[in-house]
Amino acid sequence: MNRVQVATKSKVYDVCIKAGLRHLIGDAVKKVTEPVSSVLVITDTDVAPLYLDDVVLSFKNEYPVYTEVIQSGEASKSFSVYEQVMTKALESSLDRKSLIIALGGGVVGDLAGFVAATYMRGIRFIQVPTTLLAHDSSVGGKVAINHPLGKNMVGSFHQPESVLYDTEMLYSLPVKEWRSGFAEVMKHGFIRDLSFLNWLQEIKVIEEMPIEQLNTLLEKSISIKAEIVTVDEKESGIRAHLNFGHTLGHAIESELGYGVVTHGEAVVIGMVFSLRVSEEMFNIDLDVDKYEKWFSDLGYKTKIPASCNINNLLMLMKKDKKAESQSVRMVLLSKIEEATVKEIPPTLIEKLLVERMEGDLIG
Amino acid sequence: MNRVQVATKSKVYDVCIKAGLRHLIGDAVKKVTEPVSSVLVITDTDVAPLYLDDVVLSFKNEYPVYTEVIQSGEASKSFSVYEQVMTKALESSLDRKSLIIALGGGVVGDLAGFVAATYMRGIRFIQVPTTLLAHDSSVGGKVAINHPLGKNMVGSFHQPESVLYDTEMLYSLPVKEWRSGFAEVMKHGFIRDLSFLNWLQEIKVIEEMPIEQLNTLLEKSISIKAEIVTVDEKESGIRAHLNFGHTLGHAIESELGYGVVTHGEAVVIGMVFSLRVSEEMFNIDLDVDKYEKWFSDLGYKTKIPASCNINNLLMLMKKDKKAESQSVRMVLLSKIEEATVKEIPPTLIEKLLVERMEGDLIG
Repeated sequence: MNRVQVATKSKVYDVCIKAGLRHLIGDAVKKVTEPVSSVLVITDTDVAPLYLDDVVLSFKNEYPVYTEVIQSGEASKSFSVYEQVMTKALESSLDRKSLIIALGGGVVGDLAGFVAATYMRGIRFIQVPTTLLAHDSSVGGKVAINHPLGKNMVGSFHQPESVLYDTEMLYSLPVKEWRSGFAEVMKHGFIRDLSFLNWLQEIKVIEEMPIEQLNTLLEKSISIKAEIVTVDEKESGIRAHLNFGHTLGHAIESELGYGVVTHGEAVVIGMVFSLRVSEEMFNIDLDVDKYEKWFSDLGYKTKIPASCNINNLLMLMKKDKKAESQSVRMVLLSKIEEATVKEIPPTLIEKLLVERMEGDLIG
Repeated sequence: MNRVQVATKSKVYDVCIKAGLRHLIGDAVKKVTEPVSSVLVITDTDVAPLYLDDVVLSFKNEYPVYTEVIQSGEASKSFSVYEQVMTKALESSLDRKSLIIALGGGVVGDLAGFVAATYMRGIRFIQVPTTLLAHDSSVGGKVAINHPLGKNMVGSFHQPESVLYDTEMLYSLPVKEWRSGFAEVMKHGFIRDLSFLNWLQEIKVIEEMPIEQLNTLLEKSISIKAEIVTVDEKESGIRAHLNFGHTLGHAIESELGYGVVTHGEAVVIGMVFSLRVSEEMFNIDLDVDKYEKWFSDLGYKTKIPASCNINNLLMLMKKDKKAESQSVRMVLLSKIEEATVKEIPPTLIEKLLVERMEGDLIG
């Protein structure tokens, strides 16, 4: 088993990475937390038919195990689904010693985590990620739902008791989902670890990497995330660096409507944009062309979709949680593996948004 | 000015008690917290016409000050009003440096506090209580909304930057509201301070006490709350003692429908019940008749309303947040000022519920 410790001020816990771990969730619960009175497994319509039974059976009827299956997709991170899951929790008479299991990708993890954070003012939960992307969202305790006016605008910090990663489950993912997750892996290289970034460039077909390589990749990528979260649980400082590529990425997701592009696809476009802004702001050369070619070879689009409206993107970037008093603030690189947060002049943002638009003659 | 310090693990802050303080909120904000970027004052339809202008004017246009007025009453602690206030916050472009002011009673404090706890994963807020009851709910960081299946079932712990108590505002309260708040004051005496409880028994007409006496009463009652919260911020131990009278109290409120009796009126009925359960469980005499007479003299009802169904009450008591695995747990007194949490046999609960019903021949 590969293992990464996450040590935040509010909780110390392990991320366990192992093929077939879903069959051992029941035993693992006993090892990672105090006795529980009942369990609610929250999952979605994609994951339930594949893995829900395995997880439920792993508890061997030792306590009441309830299940709630939400519609897969970002649209489920809504106020109404949040209320629906709360109703299920109350109808199942979950108490303060109950445990929530988030079995799924980022949507399930964020929603189920926010339910756990706020049900009776907070009960325990465990992340059981089923996607590559969730290696990012499942570690660090950020949980949230969306508001029509912005992604992840309603949420809190609530650390899981553990993250139990069964890498076998990832091989049922569509290519699009592998790509979405791999974007965050690359991001960790960009902001923190050049040699990891170089190692990643040897991977030619993401979804075909052998499981040992995947386990190593996850351990490394999660270690970077864990290091940052350990230093800065509540995002008062360097945790913001994890938003590299996300200011524009979130704006694109929101402008197109959630689910039209994957999160990682949007972040890749955002990372190229951030690299370009960094070059202009610091008057440096970051070899953007090389990275853009790498992204293209892996199957990513790197330009802002033509259907995006630049004024809308700009407005959305101002509403980003890193923003203060309506300025645009972004994570930039002064060189690869050195990130910093900067306020960007709106004229520069606009110029580069135009440059990076799909079909534009300059770009 | 009377002042009580609340020292929790997550935050140390002051409760300031002073007649006319509402005119000085703007200045006070500068003293109690780091600079803010904008302010959202959340209040209700009862308070807005009386005091909202005073609070807004106190900021002297130094930053953008937005206001949101919710319908007064417990029904506003709902998912839909929670979402509505979040929309207002986003439309007002509140950022992570913005401040929420909760101007009102417990409903406004709980709702606005939960908005502050979860807007962008948590921003600062200040409690400006306008009722006597809110002296309890505004201190200690418990914030929540209701679910149709239970009161305060959805919430979190989020400490305010400060509690600014303008006791002048209390004199516009109806008698019913004075009584509701005074119940929590008496509760603090019961669980923690016999001499305070005796001092309180000299008050004959609650709503007519002079403002100096009110300030002293608040300081003392809040000190007791603050002491408990300091030791046990997250209610893993003695904080549960504050629920004395609340297991049945909440059940009655829920069974009758929120707002039919006030919270404090329900808690008084719950306290008499808890005293009776304590007598039976510990085989002691707590002089219940004396306290019941005191409550009656002050204008409280002390029996369970005849319109309550005993099975429903019992079911609701099992759903209480203190409950584990569907048992009924209550706060009892082994003597006055010594509280403890006990699991109660359902047969005893039922017997005493019958005894304490309005119109019952035994009681």
